[in-house]
Amino acid sequence: MKELHVGIVGATGMVGQEFIKILDQRHFPVASIHLFASDKSAGKSVTVRQQKLTVQETSEDSFKGLDLVFFSAGTDVSKHFAPFAARAGAVVVDNSAAFRMDPDTPLVVPEINPEDCEHHHGIIANPNCSTIQMVVVLYPLHKVNPIKRVIVDTYQSVSGTGLPAVEELKSTSRAVLDGKPAEPHVYPHQIAFNMLPEIDVFMENGYTKEEWKMVTETRKIMHAPDIAISATCVRVPSLIGHSEAVHVEFTRPMSPGEARRILTEAPGVKVQDEPTAHVYPMPWTAAGQDDTFVGRIREDASHPNGLAMWICADNVRKGAALNGLQIAEAMMERGWL
Amino acid sequence: MKELHVGIVGATGMVGQEFIKILDQRHFPVASIHLFASDKSAGKSVTVRQQKLTVQETSEDSFKGLDLVFFSAGTDVSKHFAPFAARAGAVVVDNSAAFRMDPDTPLVVPEINPEDCEHHHGIIANPNCSTIQMVVVLYPLHKVNPIKRVIVDTYQSVSGTGLPAVEELKSTSRAVLDGKPAEPHVYPHQIAFNMLPEIDVFMENGYTKEEWKMVTETRKIMHAPDIAISATCVRVPSLIGHSEAVHVEFTRPMSPGEARRILTEAPGVKVQDEPTAHVYPMPWTAAGQDDTFVGRIREDASHPNGLAMWICADNVRKGAALNGLQIAEAMMERGWL
Repeated sequence: MKELHVGIVGATGMVGQEFIKILDQRHFPVASIHLFASDKSAGKSVTVRQQKLTVQETSEDSFKGLDLVFFSAGTDVSKHFAPFAARAGAVVVDNSAAFRMDPDTPLVVPEINPEDCEHHHGIIANPNCSTIQMVVVLYPLHKVNPIKRVIVDTYQSVSGTGLPAVEELKSTSRAVLDGKPAEPHVYPHQIAFNMLPEIDVFMENGYTKEEWKMVTETRKIMHAPDIAISATCVRVPSLIGHSEAVHVEFTRPMSPGEARRILTEAPGVKVQDEPTAHVYPMPWTAAGQDDTFVGRIREDASHPNGLAMWICADNVRKGAALNGLQIAEAMMERGWL
Repeated sequence: MKELHVGIVGATGMVGQEFIKILDQRHFPVASIHLFASDKSAGKSVTVRQQKLTVQETSEDSFKGLDLVFFSAGTDVSKHFAPFAARAGAVVVDNSAAFRMDPDTPLVVPEINPEDCEHHHGIIANPNCSTIQMVVVLYPLHKVNPIKRVIVDTYQSVSGTGLPAVEELKSTSRAVLDGKPAEPHVYPHQIAFNMLPEIDVFMENGYTKEEWKMVTETRKIMHAPDIAISATCVRVPSLIGHSEAVHVEFTRPMSPGEARRILTEAPGVKVQDEPTAHVYPMPWTAAGQDDTFVGRIREDASHPNGLAMWICADNVRKGAALNGLQIAEAMMERGWL
């Protein structure tokens, strides 16, 4: 099998680190690995496959000879450097929001629309974490019974913000337990034992960008521009793993049993749905797993064509690094990389 | 003003303790206070208004001479003892689910339907915490523009389960931070840094009883039997304060500005809605407050007649003890107590 020269921009971040781990776990055919980060992290040493690699500062000339570059260093870094990587001949898988809604950039969840990768212009966008885990579950149902409307409320872990936020949740939780003040630095308010209905910045229409990503990205990935979607995205005090309460309206009624049958066969999805035995998805148990977990599947009591459900996934893995690597795998399988 | 002989069943529990505190804070006209609990807690001494009172075991003969008895000791205790209190001539305000859906028992949120108290048969039911904070906000809007459908997902603090759950969240949070095992006792799974989509027991239709209370109690309190409602109720690692993401469909469109204007005037409601300045309701800041807080009011992007919003309240106060005392106050004002 062809071995690839792989670059990782944002190699010292939470998603970059997870990407390195998953490269190994999935035996991805790597010829060489090149780690990039900001000047702050350049010079750091990172162990990859028992080998110590030095992190280099990302520059416009970093990408010569690379086949695949995974970007996870924020929107500004991607906007500036990803085109250089693409021009150098690499396929970029970009975890930021920079190119997701660009009509020329495929936005891909490999279980759903891998064929969208074919007509890329050097950059493939990795969707937002909260979108990925929702569409992986909704798409197999949508294929059978087209979805008309989705209402989703999220319970998103601090790992979605990054390592400093994980540290902040831990330190402020300890402070609260010790009866000490829990000053926030990463978040605008205390996250320990609290809920913040603010993820990403607010838009004119009162939604956050995070919420709006769930609207626009879902439509683009599923090729379903007419689905009506509303979301409330909430940061909650969990470490890893996002949860979502989802209410779906289909074109026709769908029984919970039918949905469970479809989802049992769906790629990347695991049904955990024996509620009376306390079996349902939870962020704590989804953490570290590749699958997206769905349970609490029941008729939506407010609509004859509705189902309600509860979805959890590891936002750092399937919500980011794993989905990115699966994009590369899907392209290799098809000879596009 | 008439002074009442008041009994509190479940006096050592979290809600009972809060009720005692609020009696004092609101200068409720008390002639005497009588504390009752199970045999486990009988004999304990509780300080009320600088006076030490001994908790007595609840018995069928406990209620002679009492004018008002507040029950918060679980459904079984209420089912058995509340009728004895009513027969002894007291007005019972019952915080359990025992009588809420009984057609002969008023189910009351004083900001909404105080007049329902008039035709009681000795027992007035206090609604479920998650219902109260939602209807206090929805009813003023519903009066102007009738609500057709509500989808709500909750973020409910452990104080809703009681004191042992608060202790469990604290001790297991510390265990996780210390890298130690966090064995659950109160909950079926670890609650620290986790989300449990299970509150109360599961019904045949896949909903929990907690979720179904939001359906049936909302309709009864608002005298709106046709509102379509779906809920997912989730236990989250916060100590005090429930949060709710609510998506409402009205008969006609309602602008966020109109909703804000109506809610600014609404009794018991405080609008906190300057999201770009990070001003919105949070459970941490709602704790200890009497008001129900609403923010993130915006057009629901999935429906032309829809609004989305975020509601927080102190589940032990407005969700339980305070609402119970406000029922008594409303009855006294009207000469019914």
